[in-house]
Amino acid sequence: MKGRDMSKLHPKEIPEGMGAIAASIFILALIAFIPFAFYKDIVHATSGGGNRDVVARERETYSLFSNNDTLALGRHLHRFPHAKLSSYQSALATLQTTTILGLADDILDLRWRHKFFIPAVASLPLLMVYYVDFGVTSVVVPNFLRQFVPNRARLLNLGPLYYIYMSALSIFAPNSINIFAGINGIEVGQAIVIAILLIINSSLYLVPFPGNPVLDSTTGAFYNYKAGLYQHPATESHLLTLYILLPFSAVSLALYIHNRYPARVFVGDTYCYVAGMTFAVVAILSHFSKTLLLLLVPQIFNFIYSVPQLFHIVPCPRHRLPKFNARTGLLEPSVTKWEDRQPKACKTPELRSATPQPESDHKGDIIIATSNFTIINLYLVHRGPLREDRLTRELLILQFVCGAIGLLIRHKLAIFLFGMDNRPRDGIWGV
Amino acid sequence: MKGRDMSKLHPKEIPEGMGAIAASIFILALIAFIPFAFYKDIVHATSGGGNRDVVARERETYSLFSNNDTLALGRHLHRFPHAKLSSYQSALATLQTTTILGLADDILDLRWRHKFFIPAVASLPLLMVYYVDFGVTSVVVPNFLRQFVPNRARLLNLGPLYYIYMSALSIFAPNSINIFAGINGIEVGQAIVIAILLIINSSLYLVPFPGNPVLDSTTGAFYNYKAGLYQHPATESHLLTLYILLPFSAVSLALYIHNRYPARVFVGDTYCYVAGMTFAVVAILSHFSKTLLLLLVPQIFNFIYSVPQLFHIVPCPRHRLPKFNARTGLLEPSVTKWEDRQPKACKTPELRSATPQPESDHKGDIIIATSNFTIINLYLVHRGPLREDRLTRELLILQFVCGAIGLLIRHKLAIFLFGMDNRPRDGIWGV
Repeated sequence: MKGRDMSKLHPKEIPEGMGAIAASIFILALIAFIPFAFYKDIVHATSGGGNRDVVARERETYSLFSNNDTLALGRHLHRFPHAKLSSYQSALATLQTTTILGLADDILDLRWRHKFFIPAVASLPLLMVYYVDFGVTSVVVPNFLRQFVPNRARLLNLGPLYYIYMSALSIFAPNSINIFAGINGIEVGQAIVIAILLIINSSLYLVPFPGNPVLDSTTGAFYNYKAGLYQHPATESHLLTLYILLPFSAVSLALYIHNRYPARVFVGDTYCYVAGMTFAVVAILSHFSKTLLLLLVPQIFNFIYSVPQLFHIVPCPRHRLPKFNARTGLLEPSVTKWEDRQPKACKTPELRSATPQPESDHKGDIIIATSNFTIINLYLVHRGPLREDRLTRELLILQFVCGAIGLLIRHKLAIFLFGMDNRPRDGIWGV
Repeated sequence: MKGRDMSKLHPKEIPEGMGAIAASIFILALIAFIPFAFYKDIVHATSGGGNRDVVARERETYSLFSNNDTLALGRHLHRFPHAKLSSYQSALATLQTTTILGLADDILDLRWRHKFFIPAVASLPLLMVYYVDFGVTSVVVPNFLRQFVPNRARLLNLGPLYYIYMSALSIFAPNSINIFAGINGIEVGQAIVIAILLIINSSLYLVPFPGNPVLDSTTGAFYNYKAGLYQHPATESHLLTLYILLPFSAVSLALYIHNRYPARVFVGDTYCYVAGMTFAVVAILSHFSKTLLLLLVPQIFNFIYSVPQLFHIVPCPRHRLPKFNARTGLLEPSVTKWEDRQPKACKTPELRSATPQPESDHKGDIIIATSNFTIINLYLVHRGPLREDRLTRELLILQFVCGAIGLLIRHKLAIFLFGMDNRPRDGIWGV
C-alpha cells in the first residue's frame, strides 16, 4: 500500500497506513502493562492481611472439589479491584475493535458514508461493559438550570440518552481527527498535543494535597493518603487515563518522527480512528467528556466548517488538502470550482452569507469558486501561503493554545457553573 | 486477494482470506452478547434486595462528592460477578488480537517461522488477565504419581511453568489447525467438529441433577439449584464456554457453506488462528485443557508427523496439499523428490526406519522420494485416491470418532487416574 505526497516538488511514493503498526504496538503495550497496572492490587490481595501463614494454610487445604477461587489462590479476591480491571479491558477491547475496523478501511478503502459509523461499532465493547458494569447515566446539572429539574436535584439521570451521548462522542472524536488532515504530521501532531494536555489534566488529580476535608455523612467519603495528605476521589480513574495515554503518546511520537515534514510514511485511517477513540475511551471511563470537548475545539470548528462540503450541500472534491505551488514551494488554499453545480442553498443570499466563504469568486450574485471548507485552508487564507512544515507547526501551536485556555476555563468556570470544581476548595470535595 | 484452487479440473481464482470476515462477525457477536450474558447478574445486582425503595432513596441522596459507585448506581456492585466479566473480556481481547495478527499475516504473507509465534503474542491478554485475576497455577496429580509429590499432595503448584504450558497450548492449537489444511472445507470442518464435541462436553455440566451432595467442610461448597436439584460447581465456566462456542459454530457453519467442495472462497490463516485460539481460550478459562488435547488427537498426530518436513529435516515443498489427477478427477498423495538433497538424518538407517515413509521410492539404500508428511496424504496412501469432497467427509468423520472416543475415555479414565470425575459420584463433587 503506497501513496503519493502531492505537496512536494518531486512527489514520490511512500508507504501508506503505517499508523496500523503504531496502533498494534500501542495495543501490545497496553496488554503487556496489565500486570504492572495491577501489581499493587495483587500484592494487596495476596498478602493474606499481612499474615502469610493464613494464606499458606489455605493453600494446603485447598481442594479441587470446590471452585471457590478465594481459597484456590490464597488470594482474597473480594479485595481485588475487578471493576478497575474491567475498565482497562473494555478500553483495550474498544481500541482493538477500532484497529480491526481501521485495517478493514485501510485495505478496502470504504466510502466516507460507511466509514463514518466504524467508530460507533468499535465503541460497542466500551458501551456494553459500561452498561453491565457501571451504568452511571447521571450528569451534574449546572446551577442556573437546576430550577428546571424536578426537586432542584443536583443530578439528572439521562438513562438511555447517556449511551447515545457516549456513542456520539466516540463517533465524533475519531472522525474529527480524520478530517483535520492533509498535511505532513498534522494527524499525529494534533493527537500528541491533545494527549499531552489530557496527561497534564489527569496528573493534577494525582498529587495528594494537605487539607482538612469534611467527612461527607451521606457517603462516608474520606480519603487519608498519608498523614495530613489527602487523595482526590478520582485518582484511580485518572491513573487509568495515564496508563492509556502515556503509551499512546510514546507510539505517536515515534510515528511523528516518520510522518513529520518531509513525510517518509503516511499514517492512514487506522491511526486517526485509534487516536480519536483513545481520547473518547479515557473521557468516558474517567468521566471528563466535557473537558475532552474543550480540547477538541479546533476539531469541532473544522467539522462544523466542513459540514456543507461533507454533506454535499456545496460541491466537494475528492481531496481537500491545500494546493502546493511548485514555483514558490509554499502551500496555498485549494479551491473548488462550483461551475454550474450551484447548490440551491447558496442561491439564497441569507444562507450564503451565513456560510463562511473566505475566498470566493463571484459573477454578479453567483459564486463560482471558494476555497475548500477546512480549517487548514481557512488558516492559509488569513495567514497567507506557508511552507508545509511551518503550517503544521503553527496549527499545532494553535491547537495547544486553544486546549490550554480550554483547561483553564474548565477549572475556573466549573465553580461558577456547578458551584464546585474537581479540586477541593475549603476542604470540600469537588465534582 | 485471490487464490487459485489447484485441485480442480479448471482452476479458477476465488477470493482468499474470507475467514477474516467470519472472525470479525464472531467478535461482533461476542461483543453484542455481553449484556445478555450478564443480564441475570445486572437484575440481581440492581434489584436492591427486592426492595425498590432502598435503591430509590440511595439515588436521591447520591452526591458527586463521593465516588462510591454502589450508591451512584443504586446497584449493589459487590454482588456483580466482575471476575466472570473479566474472563469474558480477556477471551474477547485474545480473539481480537488473534484477528489483528491474522490479518497482518494474510496481508503481508509472513514466513512460517514468524507466523508460528503469532498465537503466542495473541494469547498475552488471556495470560495477563489470568495472572492478575485468577492466578491458579495448580494441577491435579494423578493417583499413581502422588507418591513423587511432597506430602502426597493432591495438587501440584506449577507456578510460572503453568503459564508456559498455557502459552504452549495457545501456540499449538491455532498452528495445528493451520497445518491440517489443503483441501476444500477441511479447516472449517474440523473446527466445527471440535466445537460441537466441546459444546456436548460443556452441556453435560449444565444439567442439574438430583442427589445428596456432602457439604465440604473445608470450602463450604454446597450448591442448591432447585429443590432437590444440585448444580455442578463448574456450571458458570462451562456456560462461558458455550457463550463463546455457540456463536463460533454459527459463523463457522456459514463459512463452511462457502468453503465446502467445490469451494467458492478460501478461509485464510486468520480463520485457522481464530478457530484454534477459540478452543485454547475456552480450555484455559474453563480449565479443561487436557480434554481439548484429546479432541485434537488428529491434529497432534498430523503435527508430529509433519515435524520432519516443517523443521526441514527432510525436504519440504512450498505446498503439501494432495495432488489432483486430472484424468481420474481424484486426489492422490503428493510426492516430494529428495534428489540430491539427502538430509543427513535419513542417511542413518535407524532414523530413517523410525520416520514413517508410507510411499517412498528407494535407490538401493537411498530414498529418492516420499509422499508429503501430512495426515491427508497418509490417509490417501492407505485409502487410495479419493474425490475431494469424499476425502474431506471421511477425515471429518475420523475427527469426530476420535474426539468422541476421547471424551468417553476422559470421563471414564479420569476416575482411575485421579480417583474422581467431574460428574459427581455418590454425592461427592468431582474435579
